[in-house]
Amino acid sequence: MSFSVTILGCNSALPTSARHPAAQVVNVSERYFLIDCGEGTQMQLRKNRIQFSKINHIFISHLHGDHCFGLIGLISTYNLLGRKSDLHLYAHSELEKVLTPQIEYFCTNLDYKIIYHPTNNVSNSVIYEDKHLTVTAIPLLHRIPTCGFLFREKEKPRHLRKEMIDFYNIPIRELQNIKAGADFISDSGEIVANYRLTTPATHSRSYAYCSDTEYSEAIIPAIKEVDLLYHEATFLSDLVDIAKKTGHSTAEDAACIAFKASVKKLIIGHFSSRYKDLSQFTDEAKKIFPQTELAREGKIFDIMS
Amino acid sequence: MSFSVTILGCNSALPTSARHPAAQVVNVSERYFLIDCGEGTQMQLRKNRIQFSKINHIFISHLHGDHCFGLIGLISTYNLLGRKSDLHLYAHSELEKVLTPQIEYFCTNLDYKIIYHPTNNVSNSVIYEDKHLTVTAIPLLHRIPTCGFLFREKEKPRHLRKEMIDFYNIPIRELQNIKAGADFISDSGEIVANYRLTTPATHSRSYAYCSDTEYSEAIIPAIKEVDLLYHEATFLSDLVDIAKKTGHSTAEDAACIAFKASVKKLIIGHFSSRYKDLSQFTDEAKKIFPQTELAREGKIFDIMS
Repeated sequence: MSFSVTILGCNSALPTSARHPAAQVVNVSERYFLIDCGEGTQMQLRKNRIQFSKINHIFISHLHGDHCFGLIGLISTYNLLGRKSDLHLYAHSELEKVLTPQIEYFCTNLDYKIIYHPTNNVSNSVIYEDKHLTVTAIPLLHRIPTCGFLFREKEKPRHLRKEMIDFYNIPIRELQNIKAGADFISDSGEIVANYRLTTPATHSRSYAYCSDTEYSEAIIPAIKEVDLLYHEATFLSDLVDIAKKTGHSTAEDAACIAFKASVKKLIIGHFSSRYKDLSQFTDEAKKIFPQTELAREGKIFDIMS
Repeated sequence: MSFSVTILGCNSALPTSARHPAAQVVNVSERYFLIDCGEGTQMQLRKNRIQFSKINHIFISHLHGDHCFGLIGLISTYNLLGRKSDLHLYAHSELEKVLTPQIEYFCTNLDYKIIYHPTNNVSNSVIYEDKHLTVTAIPLLHRIPTCGFLFREKEKPRHLRKEMIDFYNIPIRELQNIKAGADFISDSGEIVANYRLTTPATHSRSYAYCSDTEYSEAIIPAIKEVDLLYHEATFLSDLVDIAKKTGHSTAEDAACIAFKASVKKLIIGHFSSRYKDLSQFTDEAKKIFPQTELAREGKIFDIMS
């Protein structure tokens, strides 16, 4: 079962020739979730051979152009490609107001439905849920209402120890309960503890996307111990004043959050276009949190079970 | 004095990983004019090292997304870069209606003026003029109101034959008239014919952009004998029915127009994304008009004096 993140864009507001604005795809068992959709995202999807049709859910962190200017192009392309299935957009409620007139003008006869899911930018809240996964919106600290997104696999069933199931001759109807952690009580009233019948469940993986935001420890409980954290690092720490003023973080800020949240791995991105050499970002972050990697376009971060 | 066209995007509505939607830059003596602005144009400008600040005039052929979805990103970037000078947009009058709400939402405190110049989509009309250049909008035949654009250098002054000017001892005040073609009348009443005093002016160059359009001989008088014609060729001629139905041309159509208009050179572009191998387009066009070249991103077409 795959769980990976593909970076489509890693730059901040001003794109460069080599770095696109924010966009990435989370692949959970070949179902693709798009996070942010800066200008050029549809070209980046093609370049990275990600099948458009597998995207049914798009999460927009906030309504700054570098996070959503690519939406209208993608929506229009879906229409030209004959899309029929619903497209779900999770974003600030104002997205619908801004996007609707464009869609009405440019996408005549839209043949599929766009379903808006306004995010709550005040408290953590589950905005998406299916059999295997939840997505929680986490309010961030930026100049306008902004949400991060936490993708978390649901708890998985424990693994049955087949030899023990046979040994106690446990009927099939009990197995679901046992996988969920229940003990077994035999007809004679004997209690067999669950740990004798099962081994622990496979680890439930998690990924948190936190961009754009200034340094904010308020997010730490929500992202505690995630397998992978993407945290913006628009500036290096010599420009911490500009970072604060513009509602952004430095590489050091991102690393501090990763460290304090005890995450397993950190990706930093959303770089200001003033920086050509990005190695300075990892140099700065790794002093605090060694498991840091740069977001680079086309890079895929796999999260192992 | 440069006069060149740089291709930034050469594809039709569905961009591919290698081909962006419509955009190109006309460089006339280091003043840059942008024609069409599909999604990703600002990244293509950077990639091709074209200075943003040199663009003050943008010409939009029509309001299909693949020709204008890049506008909001470019306008926003100009604002972030601190632009102060006016930006002139030449397009169908509805552009203002569609673009204004986006600008108001995404570009707070726009620090420069956007000046809209609605195009007349009924008859040829000069929509831009400066000391050296005119731009004429040429109505095309597409599903919605669409204009091509003809860039033409103004007639240049004839070259003085210095030895003859000296020989007749012609006063400086007369030279402008003579460069403009006037004969010289000496104090004694002798008439010296202009052709004895001058050599012909340097050729005035011209470039016509015709996209999107189906085959239409109505444009031929306007583009007659231009140095360079860009004509859309969305399809190969086996799909001529689809071309007609969608208001587009085939490579053969484009070549026929080029041939009948006796242009010097033809560029074909706006390719449907269904075609991977574009050499078929030149094969088809060259049978009718040998001086055909493919539009490819980053390619610069120089027009010599």
